[in-house]
Amino acid sequence: MKRTIITIGRQTGSGGREIGVKVADALGIPYYDREIVSRAAEMSDMTEEFINAHDEKKSGSLMYSLVMDNISPPISSIPSNDRVFLAQFNAIKEAAKEGSCVIIGRCADYALEDDPDLLSIFIYADYDFRAARIQEETNLTGSGLRNLIAKTDKSRSNYYNYYTGKKWGKMTGYHMCLDSSKLGIDTCVKFICEIARDRK
Amino acid sequence: MKRTIITIGRQTGSGGREIGVKVADALGIPYYDREIVSRAAEMSDMTEEFINAHDEKKSGSLMYSLVMDNISPPISSIPSNDRVFLAQFNAIKEAAKEGSCVIIGRCADYALEDDPDLLSIFIYADYDFRAARIQEETNLTGSGLRNLIAKTDKSRSNYYNYYTGKKWGKMTGYHMCLDSSKLGIDTCVKFICEIARDRK
Repeated sequence: MKRTIITIGRQTGSGGREIGVKVADALGIPYYDREIVSRAAEMSDMTEEFINAHDEKKSGSLMYSLVMDNISPPISSIPSNDRVFLAQFNAIKEAAKEGSCVIIGRCADYALEDDPDLLSIFIYADYDFRAARIQEETNLTGSGLRNLIAKTDKSRSNYYNYYTGKKWGKMTGYHMCLDSSKLGIDTCVKFICEIARDRK
Repeated sequence: MKRTIITIGRQTGSGGREIGVKVADALGIPYYDREIVSRAAEMSDMTEEFINAHDEKKSGSLMYSLVMDNISPPISSIPSNDRVFLAQFNAIKEAAKEGSCVIIGRCADYALEDDPDLLSIFIYADYDFRAARIQEETNLTGSGLRNLIAKTDKSRSNYYNYYTGKKWGKMTGYHMCLDSSKLGIDTCVKFICEIARDRK
């Protein structure tokens, strides 16, 4: 198989993570989700615990844009969320350099947008499908369940929009977008694997 | 192959029509685009020319919502665009009743949203890819080309949003959304066919 870097953005409860794990397994390539946190910790002066506490949370400051413009403020003046984003951004680029892999969330599609071997995917699903999956994982029901889904999506969306300047879940930002509740998890897995194997 | 009704919404120049034709051909099932106009004419008191003149154009009146709520105003009081929409809506439903098929545009995904065999697809592509295709078809360049693309998309979007109450090109309204410029026309065709053949 030609080198393929598969990034997966996903709505909460859509099964994006499960699809990513199964695709990586079927293709025999590494899968990165929380592993990006460990890599970011190894490559920076931050601990895994510190990174976890700021994972996929956006900053309220403008310091990030200075760093991305190669204007380097003193490291101590960069807000924690921005430092965590930048450490993960670098960890994602390093992971992709090692060869084919699947990376979940964390704006990986943005970090790797210039990679010619990128296959950028977004997984979504209807609300009932997502609620049933999250209920099974958490035992939450009613407003607790609804709040968790809404808050997790909102947090991912805020983080993505803030750091990428693009819009989370807008189709034109991805190479393909699949409704796992309509197509089925296994069809999504099969389809993604075949596209990866067919790449020339 | 199990009965499958494939509807394709598409950005101008994305190759959605070409994909639809190739999918129908590969699966050996009918393809409907302008053919819906002929059917709508046969099933109504309107001529093809009249329907063509109002094809995929939205009405400015509220009469349509009365008709959809089964409140029947006198036929002469229904604006032409609404009568054309309703005739095409019925023609789409009749076509789908006959068995597997591919239908392009015309809010077919909305007309058939309760059909359990629906596979609803949206094809999009980056601007340069679309512009190159439309330029080849029309010989337009510069602002003429840009205007044609923008106006055609705007017209499709207005028509879809007005008659369906949904948002044209919003991923959650479709079962899958494919970027033909990133995946390639033939990959899109291959995978739509495989998903159709795999359906149980």
